[in-house]
Amino acid sequence: MKLLPILLISTISSFLVASTSLMEQAKKAGLKPIPIDKKELKKLIDPKRVITPQRVELGKKLYFDPRVSKSGLINCNWCHNLGRGGVDGVPKAIGHKWSPNPHYLNSPTVYNAVFFKRQFWNGRSASLEDQAQGPIQAGVEMAIDHNLLAKRINSIPAYVDEFKKAYGKNVKIDLKSIANAIGAFERTLVTPSRYDDFLNGDKKALTKQEQKGLKTFIDKGCVTCHTDIALGGSMKPFELNSKYKFRDVGDFVANNKMVKVPTLRNITETAPYFHNGQMWNLRDVIKEMGKVQVGYKIKKEKSTNKFDIKIMPISLSEKDVDNILSFLKSLKGRKPTIIFPQLPESTLQTPKPITDSK
Amino acid sequence: MKLLPILLISTISSFLVASTSLMEQAKKAGLKPIPIDKKELKKLIDPKRVITPQRVELGKKLYFDPRVSKSGLINCNWCHNLGRGGVDGVPKAIGHKWSPNPHYLNSPTVYNAVFFKRQFWNGRSASLEDQAQGPIQAGVEMAIDHNLLAKRINSIPAYVDEFKKAYGKNVKIDLKSIANAIGAFERTLVTPSRYDDFLNGDKKALTKQEQKGLKTFIDKGCVTCHTDIALGGSMKPFELNSKYKFRDVGDFVANNKMVKVPTLRNITETAPYFHNGQMWNLRDVIKEMGKVQVGYKIKKEKSTNKFDIKIMPISLSEKDVDNILSFLKSLKGRKPTIIFPQLPESTLQTPKPITDSK
Repeated sequence: MKLLPILLISTISSFLVASTSLMEQAKKAGLKPIPIDKKELKKLIDPKRVITPQRVELGKKLYFDPRVSKSGLINCNWCHNLGRGGVDGVPKAIGHKWSPNPHYLNSPTVYNAVFFKRQFWNGRSASLEDQAQGPIQAGVEMAIDHNLLAKRINSIPAYVDEFKKAYGKNVKIDLKSIANAIGAFERTLVTPSRYDDFLNGDKKALTKQEQKGLKTFIDKGCVTCHTDIALGGSMKPFELNSKYKFRDVGDFVANNKMVKVPTLRNITETAPYFHNGQMWNLRDVIKEMGKVQVGYKIKKEKSTNKFDIKIMPISLSEKDVDNILSFLKSLKGRKPTIIFPQLPESTLQTPKPITDSK
Repeated sequence: MKLLPILLISTISSFLVASTSLMEQAKKAGLKPIPIDKKELKKLIDPKRVITPQRVELGKKLYFDPRVSKSGLINCNWCHNLGRGGVDGVPKAIGHKWSPNPHYLNSPTVYNAVFFKRQFWNGRSASLEDQAQGPIQAGVEMAIDHNLLAKRINSIPAYVDEFKKAYGKNVKIDLKSIANAIGAFERTLVTPSRYDDFLNGDKKALTKQEQKGLKTFIDKGCVTCHTDIALGGSMKPFELNSKYKFRDVGDFVANNKMVKVPTLRNITETAPYFHNGQMWNLRDVIKEMGKVQVGYKIKKEKSTNKFDIKIMPISLSEKDVDNILSFLKSLKGRKPTIIFPQLPESTLQTPKPITDSK
């Protein structure tokens, strides 16, 4: 009877040793935690020192303000719902006049997007501040002309005051400064998880199965694309010529076969999956990726300057898939507390909403 | 030089005496403040003692959860935006598939709706819990079949847990209990204002002009319909036969010529105005009401059991209108702090959103 505790201790301690080496392996493989240290985090999310509390608060209001759209009904939160992992939960985004995204694109999460190297599925934007200008103007999304938007916001004195406090007296309130404030808010939307606690040194933060999953995730090469802090967010070659059944990627073909790798953070909240939102079961997604995406060889064709990609499927056992799934669940993060903003009143000068409805 | 302070004090004290009698006049005229006393308020907003913190928190989640709609995109907050005075800011509501309200009806505010005697413009509902069941199912609003809704919510374990905690282990999660929780949340959405402070005894809470406006509001008879705590919320005869230019009232004609009087609380935030949202300028609205609605005689026709209404327009000077406008602005209330809820995850059993888009 006295043997049991000793055995138990020995098991635990060997488990802790294994955890330490897994931590090191993960970091060597390119995985990075969201830092605990506030200064370190601040440097990462705000390298150009553009965030101030005033800008974040203003940006939060604009993020939730449907007057940033033509109809006066659609806000950023419509597609990037902060109560739902930062997404809308439908395969393809629905925008102004109920328009579906013509490229069949699924809305990516805004949480931790600050850690992405590029924004948009085809990576055409380098920053959150630049990205935010797109959906605001896109006809199938918020559909507002930038002049109309500027007129709306400039007609609301409380907004003008807040812009002056946030950006100085001579601020020009236009699409660019509006998107800048929204970007400042979005930079704060980071969600540390148990996985981060683990990489930050808390060896017990992940269960044994989650650790196994992390190890499999690294060993099988998932980490090749799902890397860095976001476990994604950079441009990688995307196989278009395989039998990949969910290969409709809109306008990516023109874009050198590169696609922005989606983050895996909060992945259990962000179904449906893939750029076109065609799969709902995360277990199936892991298998699908193993089949069609993981393990590729790339050759750059000199004549066309394009990539030639050869896929080498890997084998994932059912147990591997279970373990990876278990690990992915641990990426669910702690969300920042968001007080729902009271938006300033429109005035008689405020251009009216245009719903384009019958 | 020493005379000035004495004069000033004398002016202030006579102002205070006038304030006291205005306070009494207002109460005699049927106006009532939101009580300061928490127990008294609780009795008013929860006469049947149905509110619990668990139900309110659950109701808040459901209020903000777009999965309560067929598309998975539209939540209660879409039309009753708690950041915008509890409304959507468009003339007629836009719902599922971008459908406009076929009766040209403007979304009424949810703030202080707990004080309304009836819900909906035609008063067809007696409680918030009953009202909430309407838009959820209406084809042009949230458009969800009640079986689909029950299936969705029952498929989400975190919701099931919350329902059990809020309503007991044997709770049946269906349209009725879902609407009950939403109602519990809505009962908490009350917004005391400076006007309430005034009626509750703080004589300085309203400026001199606002007090003049309140007096005119009472003297001219606006208070006949805009009465009680909500300054509205009960059914009153509505003139349909006049030249009233904004008289398209949907299906009210069938309803004995009665209409629910809209609340005036937070009125500066809830443009556009009238049941059909056809006026944007609050000053014009006051004038319009003076012309077509205030001062009527009612005869009930025995043969038809319907009302015969004779309108007697009143005269409002420009100064009267200014003062009333000033008073109405004082009705802007202090909103409850709402932490944006994190919604529980869907599962593989959760029925998918149906956007009915191309």
